[in-house]
Amino acid sequence: MGELNSSELTSFFMGLAVLLGSAHVLGEVARRLGQPVVIGEMVAGLILGPSLLGWLAPDFQQWLFPHQGPAATAIDAVVILGVALLLLVAGMEVDLSTVWRQGTTALSVGLGGALIPLAVGGAVAWLAPEWWGMPPSGSPGPFAVFFGVAMAVSALPVIAKILLDLDLLKTDFGMLTLVAATLTNLVAWLVFSVLLRAGEEGHSIAYTVALTLGFVALVLTVGRWLADRLLPWVQAHLVWPGGVLGFVLVAGLGGAAITEAIGIHAIFGAFLAGIALGDSPHLREHTRHIVYRFVEGILAPIFVAAIGLEVSFVTNFHLGLVLRVLILGTILKVLGCSFAARLGGLRGIEVWGIGWAMNARGELGIVLGLIAWQAEVIRERLFVALVILALVSTAVTGPILTRLLRRQRIWSLATLLDSRGCVTDLDASDDASAIRKLGMVAAQRAGLDADEVMAAVLERERMMGTGLGHGVAVPHARLENLRIPVVVLGTAPHGVEFESFDGEPVRLIFLILTPQSDPASQIQILREIAQLTHNASLREEAVAAQSPTSLLASLRVAGALQKSTS
Amino acid sequence: MGELNSSELTSFFMGLAVLLGSAHVLGEVARRLGQPVVIGEMVAGLILGPSLLGWLAPDFQQWLFPHQGPAATAIDAVVILGVALLLLVAGMEVDLSTVWRQGTTALSVGLGGALIPLAVGGAVAWLAPEWWGMPPSGSPGPFAVFFGVAMAVSALPVIAKILLDLDLLKTDFGMLTLVAATLTNLVAWLVFSVLLRAGEEGHSIAYTVALTLGFVALVLTVGRWLADRLLPWVQAHLVWPGGVLGFVLVAGLGGAAITEAIGIHAIFGAFLAGIALGDSPHLREHTRHIVYRFVEGILAPIFVAAIGLEVSFVTNFHLGLVLRVLILGTILKVLGCSFAARLGGLRGIEVWGIGWAMNARGELGIVLGLIAWQAEVIRERLFVALVILALVSTAVTGPILTRLLRRQRIWSLATLLDSRGCVTDLDASDDASAIRKLGMVAAQRAGLDADEVMAAVLERERMMGTGLGHGVAVPHARLENLRIPVVVLGTAPHGVEFESFDGEPVRLIFLILTPQSDPASQIQILREIAQLTHNASLREEAVAAQSPTSLLASLRVAGALQKSTS
Repeated sequence: MGELNSSELTSFFMGLAVLLGSAHVLGEVARRLGQPVVIGEMVAGLILGPSLLGWLAPDFQQWLFPHQGPAATAIDAVVILGVALLLLVAGMEVDLSTVWRQGTTALSVGLGGALIPLAVGGAVAWLAPEWWGMPPSGSPGPFAVFFGVAMAVSALPVIAKILLDLDLLKTDFGMLTLVAATLTNLVAWLVFSVLLRAGEEGHSIAYTVALTLGFVALVLTVGRWLADRLLPWVQAHLVWPGGVLGFVLVAGLGGAAITEAIGIHAIFGAFLAGIALGDSPHLREHTRHIVYRFVEGILAPIFVAAIGLEVSFVTNFHLGLVLRVLILGTILKVLGCSFAARLGGLRGIEVWGIGWAMNARGELGIVLGLIAWQAEVIRERLFVALVILALVSTAVTGPILTRLLRRQRIWSLATLLDSRGCVTDLDASDDASAIRKLGMVAAQRAGLDADEVMAAVLERERMMGTGLGHGVAVPHARLENLRIPVVVLGTAPHGVEFESFDGEPVRLIFLILTPQSDPASQIQILREIAQLTHNASLREEAVAAQSPTSLLASLRVAGALQKSTS
Repeated sequence: MGELNSSELTSFFMGLAVLLGSAHVLGEVARRLGQPVVIGEMVAGLILGPSLLGWLAPDFQQWLFPHQGPAATAIDAVVILGVALLLLVAGMEVDLSTVWRQGTTALSVGLGGALIPLAVGGAVAWLAPEWWGMPPSGSPGPFAVFFGVAMAVSALPVIAKILLDLDLLKTDFGMLTLVAATLTNLVAWLVFSVLLRAGEEGHSIAYTVALTLGFVALVLTVGRWLADRLLPWVQAHLVWPGGVLGFVLVAGLGGAAITEAIGIHAIFGAFLAGIALGDSPHLREHTRHIVYRFVEGILAPIFVAAIGLEVSFVTNFHLGLVLRVLILGTILKVLGCSFAARLGGLRGIEVWGIGWAMNARGELGIVLGLIAWQAEVIRERLFVALVILALVSTAVTGPILTRLLRRQRIWSLATLLDSRGCVTDLDASDDASAIRKLGMVAAQRAGLDADEVMAAVLERERMMGTGLGHGVAVPHARLENLRIPVVVLGTAPHGVEFESFDGEPVRLIFLILTPQSDPASQIQILREIAQLTHNASLREEAVAAQSPTSLLASLRVAGALQKSTS
């Protein structure tokens, strides 16, 4: 310590606090508007960066986020740590054993999905490099290779998340997509990492490629073997979870240092370390979650917001280039992957599904652009266009897949229950009056007629009581003219009589309305409620809650309501 | 990004990986030797710093941990972030409402325990400043104040941990000690923070003091109120746990920035923010845990190890000064607190108990010394002496309290069960043969005669079967000549007949031997086993484990076996 003086320390702490705070606030705003969180985080950076704050109050902006000097280096250190850990987490999502199991179809889609956009995108850029955003000092060769990579990249974590939301993850289609995205990523990052350093003095391309391939082979054989051996030992013997967290981070940081030292980019090493660790069946889901949550909650928002600090998205916004990149990027990726999928033997609508799924670029696309811009391979305006491509391609993937594959989104309790749907201390003497009171809330939220809702729920209740036992009841109905499910939760500390097999009075009542056409969501919601209320102390805490906010907090904090986050 | 070039990035990542990895390895070694983890982490730093590596291979050491330049600043940023978050966590342990409830006794112990060492230590240092380690350029006034603070500081988190281990935390004595340590900390850090900046140009002492007290008052009133209002909202509405993690960090970083800006040290602001947050009943234990685990597992080891990088503990080790500081520090703190406790109305052996408990200085003592050394208030040799005082005072507190208060350490399953005490796939046809096989392992570990152990366990089993139901049995015995408890766990996937109320064959057998004189540990262990095996999926996973290591990992990862960590 002691490298930073008092004023530098102030702007370091203040800069981090402002970045993190505004990224969280605007990320939440984006989520509520139905947009990916990453878009809100980006906007936070745009507001704080040269695009807005630097234009309104340049001196203040410069004090808060200095462009150089120790305070800039200090914030930079936290940002680059975030990027490395983001790639570590992305690597942990890769499942190599599935790659082998999927056979040649996956190989074709994965390699084709990488090589077609790479080759065609590269050729297009090589023919008119300056039109596509090469800096005046650049040379067309490296620029064309980078441009091809930028067209080819797919964001593994984002794709996995979208498939999960559509309940496609564990299907053949989902696995095929994930495997293909894994291969594409490996190829794209490999080419990109080699490219970045190959041009520098003292590094011949052949030497860098040989070293890189050697390191990749080493990590994926010896590294995987070591990770698989060490992880159970670390988890059994060291302090939990500090020991395994430390181990995972040491592997990631070590991998980053080694790849940086042999002349390719640090983040590729973190990505490889993640693959080696994530491939071990001994890496517990819980460990993955702790690292993931920390990266997702703290480091990724800082990193994403920090992007907006780099360049002005106003002065560097070139509409023509943005549109060209959006159109070319989407066409190359969707067509390239679909073509490769057909070659690999896939038929029907899934050919197009895999193309659109692979098109999501997420944060990885942004990282790629940022590094290329800093290495002066591309101009600011292309960086801006690539960031927009990453955001747009991510935002459209979910909706397009939903329509294309006629997938119905399966709604979960976590998404549906909010504090306006919670009623504490319900004043009701019997099941009918409780249902009437919750039904009014539900009908209002659904925009339906209250009498109709209550009639449907009471009708269902008459057929068979919905008491689950342990003081929980789930009155419900399926309605024709409902668009998305509605869940309302009421607590009745004094107990209400419901028909339930254990005869206990009911103190937690979930009223559930689902569309007639969506049985899957109803099943999902009922399953979640059963799991949630299985926990006796959680039931007690929920019943004791004094306000809708604390009722919701008690459920969410128990880990029972995991909100979808992207 | 872009502030660090490739070689700086390499040493940044490599430096962090090496610091974190060696801190974890040596921390674990220390724990196994029965020492506090922090001692092992310190030793890791000593090995990597100028004391050893810098002496053996100065060029390599300088490359890995440069003293200045961007890479040094980058590592520094991570270290100082760690210190700020450590103080944030320490602040979250403070419970202000308990301070009010404890009344005047606590006030007397807390203030007396701070002011007596502060005044006497300060006076002693003022009389012979250079003999106590003032730098030649220093002035006796500030030096004396700092020295007094260093004598007065108490480490809240470490004391809480020791009281917990001795099952004293929830007693009147425990609460009194915690409250007193809280007050002492507030006073000591306040004096220290003001001292650090008061001497600088442009800051008058009165102005800094007024500003500081104003800020403290603001945080403890408006800040607390705000935290209490915002926390439930954040926990109910934002993504869990990312939202609340972000909120806590923004508060800590913001507090740090503000105190640094008004002219006192950043870490005091993080500490205050921690108090404001921790005081809210809405700050869930789970949130506290996530922040705590991350700081404990990643940032604290890096910070502690980084201390060893600062100075050579070989050339700056001055035996005379180390002994003087150790003796004076211990006497002032133990006598001062005991005297204040007597004045406050406490009687009997607890008067001495509180004195020794308050003597533990932990990481906070080290942070204090480090900052003073960097501000050139003290010499290297005094910094080294203060680090040793912090380590020694922490290491002796537990054993001394145990003897003084005749407390028996309550052993927990987590501490007792290791992989050598696990037997998978036990080949046994009935309860007697299972007990015989596990009894042999237990007897060997306890250094007792196997026949004697088995006879005692079988005798107990005959009185009443120890099957808990759900396929779990807990044969046990209390033995005269046993020093500490022994637990051995066997799995029998095919089931063994035990007498249990549900008649299910037993597949998990915990054999427990406890000393005759220690009924509390037996109760604790049985309670932990009952909680652990309540979880059906955990039971399945444990029974399916193929090796002792994976058996232990399955239990520990479930969060069921929390190892004590300091």
